[in-house]
Amino acid sequence: MDVDKEFFSNISSRERAIFEGAISMGALFHQFIGTPVNANSLPSLEIAIEASLLLQPAIEKVEVNIDLAKLKEEMTDFDYVSLSGDMLDVKIWSKIDNVLAIVRMKFIEELNYPLMFIEEIIQ
Amino acid sequence: MDVDKEFFSNISSRERAIFEGAISMGALFHQFIGTPVNANSLPSLEIAIEASLLLQPAIEKVEVNIDLAKLKEEMTDFDYVSLSGDMLDVKIWSKIDNVLAIVRMKFIEELNYPLMFIEEIIQ
Amino acid sequence: MDVDKEFFSNISSRERAIFEGAISMGALFHQFIGTPVNANSLPSLEIAIEASLLLQPAIEKVEVNIDLAKLKEEMTDFDYVSLSGDMLDVKIWSKIDNVLAIVRMKFIEELNYPLMFIEEIIQ
Amino acid sequence: MDVDKEFFSNISSRERAIFEGAISMGALFHQFIGTPVNANSLPSLEIAIEASLLLQPAIEKVEVNIDLAKLKEEMTDFDYVSLSGDMLDVKIWSKIDNVLAIVRMKFIEELNYPLMFIEEIIQ
Repeated sequence: MDVDKEFFSNISSRERAIFEGAISMGALFHQFIGTPVNANSLPSLEIAIEASLLLQPAIEKVEVNIDLAKLKEEMTDFDYVSLSGDMLDVKIWSKIDNVLAIVRMKFIEELNYPLMFIEEIIQ
Repeated sequence: MDVDKEFFSNISSRERAIFEGAISMGALFHQFIGTPVNANSLPSLEIAIEASLLLQPAIEKVEVNIDLAKLKEEMTDFDYVSLSGDMLDVKIWSKIDNVLAIVRMKFIEELNYPLMFIEEIIQ
Repeated sequence: MDVDKEFFSNISSRERAIFEGAISMGALFHQFIGTPVNANSLPSLEIAIEASLLLQPAIEKVEVNIDLAKLKEEMTDFDYVSLSGDMLDVKIWSKIDNVLAIVRMKFIEELNYPLMFIEEIIQ
Repeated sequence: MDVDKEFFSNISSRERAIFEGAISMGALFHQFIGTPVNANSLPSLEIAIEASLLLQPAIEKVEVNIDLAKLKEEMTDFDYVSLSGDMLDVKIWSKIDNVLAIVRMKFIEELNYPLMFIEEIIQ
């Protein structure tokens, strides 16, 4: 089956790079939010998130930063927290043909919201 | 296969009621944390959580309360929030033979933590 | 803060409709996969998924169909299954300005994969 | 606040070891099911799951084995799969005072179900 021809001929390479990067960002948030994390487990969680999202279609690179200061602010009496959107800063590089879309998730204090947007498109 | 005999003969009915209730409470938290929710969608989310957890072994009743005041405190500019542990108050009734365990999850401000504990055991 | 101007002026309305619909499809899959479900709980789960995803930016309509025949094929000895990608058929309508993107997730047997693609764009 | 006295004086150390181990097993399943995984990302996922669950109350050790043969059987055209219960074999060691409970999750073909049970209690 020619997946590209069958399912993606109705959008441009640029649109598909955006599409695939956005899927992976939504996936990342809803797969990993709630995971127990503290300073000790943080590096292994960042690595596992990056490695798993990298498997999805068109994804070339994933960079996950969990904000240790925020994590400490929300610390519980049990020495760990549940991963939440306000601790996450993520970049996902998605490439289709010659178009590279960089999707970003960043917590915007003014909106009290982990906003997902297109940081840059290189073509 | 006699599952009870094969896998659960090493614990008492009381211990198994605790075991099954605890599994379902851990499951509930990590399945649904992160779900988009606001006042409009809240009733359908409570109902779906209750209906899904009720399917697990030994679970007789599930009561989920999402704290609307807390939800509003954490409101974003996009008119919804991600479900988090501090909004949840849950009771799960788990029964094995003649023993009923009521497992509770409740956010304890002093611990900044959604604590899971056994509220009552009736036998 | 003018979110549109600040964060989305680098893409067209059509691209943003695609972007927002794709985020919500990735979110849906990774939030709800693994949820206990059977024929009894299925309607409440479909309704809760639809109501929660409808809250996300630009989403106008969500239609979730869980395949009861597939669910029964995968039935366990405990009378329920974990929701998996091969049971799901989903459409998400995402609208920005005058552009409506319909994002679809459908299990493609030949790929053994729940493919996400753009079913139609109306503008 | 004396959490043990306030919330756990109604159950024995043995019961609480079972309780905490069961919570973590339910948590593990519902947090990580659905994660994209293949042979390359598998080691980092196993490590991250172990490190995150180890943070929960009473958990002394976590051993996660993802069955590579099963993973390959379910392989998609996109060279990865969604983590599912039939690939997982997990042991969680939970200790309260002098009691160590070993909780196990193992897929039982005959039940078509990832069964959670107490493998051993050492006291």
